[in-house]
Amino acid sequence: MELVRRLKRADVHGSILGLLQWDEQVNLPPDSGDRRAQQLALMAELHHRAVSDPAIGGLLQDLERDRAALDEADRVIARHARRDYDRATKLPAEFVTEKAVLDSEAFHAWREARATSDFAKFRPYLERQLEAARREAAFVGWGDRAYDYCIDRHDPGMSAAQIEVLFAELQRDLVPLVREITASPVRPPVDRLKGFAVAGQQSFLREVTTALGFNYCRGRIDVAVHPFCSGDAADTRMTTRYHEDKPLDALFSSIHETGHGLYEQGLPIEHLGTPLGQATGMAIHESQSRLWENQVGRSRAFWRFFEPRFRAIFPGQLDAIASDELYLAINAVALSPVRVESDEVTYNLHILLRFDLERRLFAGQLAVADLPAAWNQRTRDLFGFTPANDAQGVLQDVHWSGGAFGYFPSYCLGNMIAAQLWYAARAALVGLDDDFARGDFSRLLGWLRDGVHRHGRRFDTRELVRRVTGEELSPAHLLRYLRERYLPLYLPATR
Amino acid sequence: MELVRRLKRADVHGSILGLLQWDEQVNLPPDSGDRRAQQLALMAELHHRAVSDPAIGGLLQDLERDRAALDEADRVIARHARRDYDRATKLPAEFVTEKAVLDSEAFHAWREARATSDFAKFRPYLERQLEAARREAAFVGWGDRAYDYCIDRHDPGMSAAQIEVLFAELQRDLVPLVREITASPVRPPVDRLKGFAVAGQQSFLREVTTALGFNYCRGRIDVAVHPFCSGDAADTRMTTRYHEDKPLDALFSSIHETGHGLYEQGLPIEHLGTPLGQATGMAIHESQSRLWENQVGRSRAFWRFFEPRFRAIFPGQLDAIASDELYLAINAVALSPVRVESDEVTYNLHILLRFDLERRLFAGQLAVADLPAAWNQRTRDLFGFTPANDAQGVLQDVHWSGGAFGYFPSYCLGNMIAAQLWYAARAALVGLDDDFARGDFSRLLGWLRDGVHRHGRRFDTRELVRRVTGEELSPAHLLRYLRERYLPLYLPATR
Repeated sequence: MELVRRLKRADVHGSILGLLQWDEQVNLPPDSGDRRAQQLALMAELHHRAVSDPAIGGLLQDLERDRAALDEADRVIARHARRDYDRATKLPAEFVTEKAVLDSEAFHAWREARATSDFAKFRPYLERQLEAARREAAFVGWGDRAYDYCIDRHDPGMSAAQIEVLFAELQRDLVPLVREITASPVRPPVDRLKGFAVAGQQSFLREVTTALGFNYCRGRIDVAVHPFCSGDAADTRMTTRYHEDKPLDALFSSIHETGHGLYEQGLPIEHLGTPLGQATGMAIHESQSRLWENQVGRSRAFWRFFEPRFRAIFPGQLDAIASDELYLAINAVALSPVRVESDEVTYNLHILLRFDLERRLFAGQLAVADLPAAWNQRTRDLFGFTPANDAQGVLQDVHWSGGAFGYFPSYCLGNMIAAQLWYAARAALVGLDDDFARGDFSRLLGWLRDGVHRHGRRFDTRELVRRVTGEELSPAHLLRYLRERYLPLYLPATR
Repeated sequence: MELVRRLKRADVHGSILGLLQWDEQVNLPPDSGDRRAQQLALMAELHHRAVSDPAIGGLLQDLERDRAALDEADRVIARHARRDYDRATKLPAEFVTEKAVLDSEAFHAWREARATSDFAKFRPYLERQLEAARREAAFVGWGDRAYDYCIDRHDPGMSAAQIEVLFAELQRDLVPLVREITASPVRPPVDRLKGFAVAGQQSFLREVTTALGFNYCRGRIDVAVHPFCSGDAADTRMTTRYHEDKPLDALFSSIHETGHGLYEQGLPIEHLGTPLGQATGMAIHESQSRLWENQVGRSRAFWRFFEPRFRAIFPGQLDAIASDELYLAINAVALSPVRVESDEVTYNLHILLRFDLERRLFAGQLAVADLPAAWNQRTRDLFGFTPANDAQGVLQDVHWSGGAFGYFPSYCLGNMIAAQLWYAARAALVGLDDDFARGDFSRLLGWLRDGVHRHGRRFDTRELVRRVTGEELSPAHLLRYLRERYLPLYLPATR
């Protein structure tokens, strides 16, 4: 239909914008940023024009006139296309311009503030970003429910109240669990992994990601400063970065991005650019990357197959590392004040902290001026220490400088969903560990394709979880998984 | 002014299109061509819309109303922007669509015809391309001067009649010169160059192109099936390809592309996207690539500096090759029926042949049906042999399948201009060989920047040559250069 044709055409604009961004991170010569800024600005403008084309609005109205006559697929298209169209058209042009300027200024203020660990420099910009988020929510029709609007943008159907319940339950058991693990005398030999040549890392990583099912005929992996996955089912582009003394970093960040990539590649390509061919939301996306990175990639069964191959490529480097030591390094846990340096156990604490602060900021229970003190207090509550300074604390993440509120919770929701999917898959697929030990990941991928990937945006986050796992979204599975994986490693005597 | 703003904006569209094409050759996953086709089609449409925007037409009319009041720079802009705008707008939409379909069909027919060496399969498409070129010329206002229109598109101000005079003069002396050189018993030891690891080639090539002046902070070089140079002064992207047993191929094709890249990088970046910041035409562009590749890159002085560095990277591979032998391999000459396999001496014969045939086709003196016979006859006249088949003869080049008539002459004009610039530079810059022998190419580059690059499209091809060399464009310099470089190598006794 004409609406689908127009949505797909608008999406081609978006895909070109995405390629410009990918190329900027991967290939752009150091002094060519000025030109890329022009190209990005033009393409963003053309993309916005395409997605906010009044013709789409007219076609949507036609469709909405007789909802009862629509089949299920068209109802999905109508619902999400309306959602996207409203967001693209309800924001006044002056607001969009003002916000773009604010984003740029706030980013530079944040960078400067972090470099000097001086929150005062960032404070007025953060206040303005909060205000902008409130105005944006009102423009789009969410009234004063600004934080819910932010959350729903990333994870359709989720709300702050729901997340509060889930996170409270998680926190109750996670904090003592982290305390147990980090009190253990067991020390992973991470520092003894040294001198892993990049070429060998590349070839091992390629073997692993290919085995997991990434289709390199429709995708690639390159080097960039930050690992990410961009593109879509037609052309999926991942990045990683190498360090000779941190061979597990490139490997696991690549498995993580492969999880995102497998989701994109599993979306129905015939619906590319329409809600039937797009990801559900951030939390589900993150569940796919985390499932492959953690539940699969850090499992004994996975390493049963890949350890000999890893050792064959790096015999000298791994000679002095026993098998159990390697496995412990793969599952290293250590408290850090910095989110991006955290392992899969303690990572969740960082999100609990951020969600709590965001929620209170939006509820008017916390002033931006009081944010550093609140950050440090919550860190003491959850981690048991105080960050050395604001650069290592409240200023560590870029997200808020761009007004990306309601984004952090998706990471932890993704962890919960990954664990919930993991146990559901194991129940459905008998002998999964034997598959992995043979280097065969196809049954798990097939199960995810069928239960998650192929549906596009058909179901909202919680409904999708319910359908594929048969249960409501719950932190219980994540807690169970963390206990089952980490307690035997760090508290072997108690098992 | 507003016209400049719009031209620059249209050019940003073009630069995105260019990046999509570059990425297609360098990075595109093998199965992602469908998506790229969508992206290219959309971007070509948006680019065409931008360059044919009626607002540009209106601004041009305003400007043209009082030509006398324009300063020199604005006159250049008005002249070329009018030229570009007319071409973008005078072709009826149906013709453009029809031509795009023809290009695609003719390309596939040509590929099939070449694979089976069956000219009959290509003939109807070539006839249609000739007809399309005639119609296009008429639409744009060139009446029945279709071939002149084709030539002028690539090299503003040039005509078939002018080229005919230049090429006749070149042919008279070149044919006997080639005969002398190829009759020589001297045989370059090209086949003894073997086993040059790609990493070493890459590092040597990077050193050479950096020394020549390519700015890698605003450009890059990657691997692609065919070497090319794309992008502009803001972001110049070259490609090459490596073969372990043909180390001189990647090196000289990269020096060639560096010549194109240096021209782009020398165009005034503040005028990027306007006629003041664009290249004069194909022949001048080719003169830059050829000058650096041949006159500079194959000179004794160049190798005085780079030979020790080349040997340091590849000691084993070059041990058994004496210095004189290496220099001979660098300047190998051999008759081949295939243009793209030819050296700088015999290459020109291939162009003389093609120009003669194109001219007669457009003049109605040669029917497409008679083209293979005419091709073979001209090959016998110029080369002294007959191609083994049409695949090695009339079907070897892709150009005509896309209707790219009048393009071949630029290659040979570029060779002439390169030689003419070379002698002018040597007259102006005393001690240039000493510069090269020290690895210093900055005076030559500065001279080209000043005489050629910085002018953009200010002067047409012949006027630019006249201004920078003080003489009319002539083949005499190319003939002198070929004699001075190749006779001592191949006929040492006669010197």
